[in-house]
Amino acid sequence: MSSFSWPVRVYWEDTDGGGVVYYANYLKFLERARTEWLRSCGFSQQALAQDPGIIFAVVNLRIQYKRPARLDDELLVSCEAHSQGAAAIRFAQRIARRVPAVSAPAQTLAEAEVKVACVDAGTFRPKRLPSFLMNALVAPEPH
Amino acid sequence: MSSFSWPVRVYWEDTDGGGVVYYANYLKFLERARTEWLRSCGFSQQALAQDPGIIFAVVNLRIQYKRPARLDDELLVSCEAHSQGAAAIRFAQRIARRVPAVSAPAQTLAEAEVKVACVDAGTFRPKRLPSFLMNALVAPEPH
Amino acid sequence: MSSFSWPVRVYWEDTDGGGVVYYANYLKFLERARTEWLRSCGFSQQALAQDPGIIFAVVNLRIQYKRPARLDDELLVSCEAHSQGAAAIRFAQRIARRVPAVSAPAQTLAEAEVKVACVDAGTFRPKRLPSFLMNALVAPEPH
Amino acid sequence: MSSFSWPVRVYWEDTDGGGVVYYANYLKFLERARTEWLRSCGFSQQALAQDPGIIFAVVNLRIQYKRPARLDDELLVSCEAHSQGAAAIRFAQRIARRVPAVSAPAQTLAEAEVKVACVDAGTFRPKRLPSFLMNALVAPEPH
Repeated sequence: MSSFSWPVRVYWEDTDGGGVVYYANYLKFLERARTEWLRSCGFSQQALAQDPGIIFAVVNLRIQYKRPARLDDELLVSCEAHSQGAAAIRFAQRIARRVPAVSAPAQTLAEAEVKVACVDAGTFRPKRLPSFLMNALVAPEPH
Repeated sequence: MSSFSWPVRVYWEDTDGGGVVYYANYLKFLERARTEWLRSCGFSQQALAQDPGIIFAVVNLRIQYKRPARLDDELLVSCEAHSQGAAAIRFAQRIARRVPAVSAPAQTLAEAEVKVACVDAGTFRPKRLPSFLMNALVAPEPH
Repeated sequence: MSSFSWPVRVYWEDTDGGGVVYYANYLKFLERARTEWLRSCGFSQQALAQDPGIIFAVVNLRIQYKRPARLDDELLVSCEAHSQGAAAIRFAQRIARRVPAVSAPAQTLAEAEVKVACVDAGTFRPKRLPSFLMNALVAPEPH
Repeated sequence: MSSFSWPVRVYWEDTDGGGVVYYANYLKFLERARTEWLRSCGFSQQALAQDPGIIFAVVNLRIQYKRPARLDDELLVSCEAHSQGAAAIRFAQRIARRVPAVSAPAQTLAEAEVKVACVDAGTFRPKRLPSFLMNALVAPEPH
């Protein structure tokens, strides 16, 4: 298990005519946090796609929308990674709004669970997670 | 209950560097089908937002990605609407690829379940589904 | 020269918090029309990327936004292709709104000029337009 | 005149099947930089839309694409604002890639010129730039 947070600012591109963030765009925010978590572990996806030739494909996803995010909001997207079998990672993720007031707790806007499979960059067939990534997933676990 | 299908073509804008449709963009396809289903029942969301002042907000969503869609693919997005309580609609949706070969069955690429709440366009507070929409939801049900 | 039009419907995904289509999304509509023009000439970009291994990259673009498009609008995107040298195509494009009233002329929302280069799918180096495409570009020209 | 730069990271959401950033998405990056420039001058667009009820609409745009950006790239988007008449701002913008090597100059990927009009948030009719914004535009000018 490994926990991580990434800040996201809401821009015009993210909003829709309802004045709030378009529901599909929260998935972009979730993915940015997963990518930055991977980078914080020392891995670039561009590099992993070349060697050892793997990319990560979302297999399934559950998201609960609780409160809408709006233009100019500062969000914090968290991401807790768990290995699931030899070829997948399960992420528990949360999108919260940073509240300007000092000491006010962040408001949860959305919660998601995302299962990501490790696949061959060419064939999209499942591949075992590389051991260095498995180690990164297991390492921070307290015991 | 009410069933409906809507064709979607995959363009460059929908794909990502992995050569397949970006995972968040399937949610756009799902929403197009829901919007067109609503239109097929005689309702424009632009008009509903003015009078009686309602919009539809996704409350939660589950999606299972089975096979990737690619550039130029012709997809068929289905949408089966069920009323859920007085202020929400539950959609069972499926994204399939039309296979060129005559009489080949369409391949299922993704399956989703989407709960949509009817909310006030200004306050985002829950509102009862208008009766004409409730009727449209119930009407096609065989019994 | 070759002229062509393609219908586009505006969905929630296209709009922004200002209640109108987000300015970058008009470029998606322009690209759909160019892709469909190419398809109408008998070419799929997926196939061209494989053999002869070319893709089309936008080199420069000018767009003038005249009136905003809104949710549910039915647009018509036109595209007039001109060859420009041996390795590029220049498109004159227009986005118009179809007006429901019988015999009302379509309203021009945006006008664009887009220069697209033919490049190698792997290296992104310029490549000559294949002769079958050159022919398609020249063929419909009246003289 | 006023100059400003904003960093942008390239994520999967930004790329397309050609393995590079989709051409419309550069316009999102340009807009983020303009928004952050405005914020750096002390103005939130959410607030300006409420009081004095103005939003900024792009009137026309010219962009030249020189080199493609790719997944994981770190970009720097600059933005130089000039007042143009009483109701518009003209931005000269540049997107560059930060090169990892120490002391290597950033590579220019795209250059754009964007004219943005100040319009009424409700009617989209042109409005004079508020004087505090005019002052911010003029202030940094050396003379």
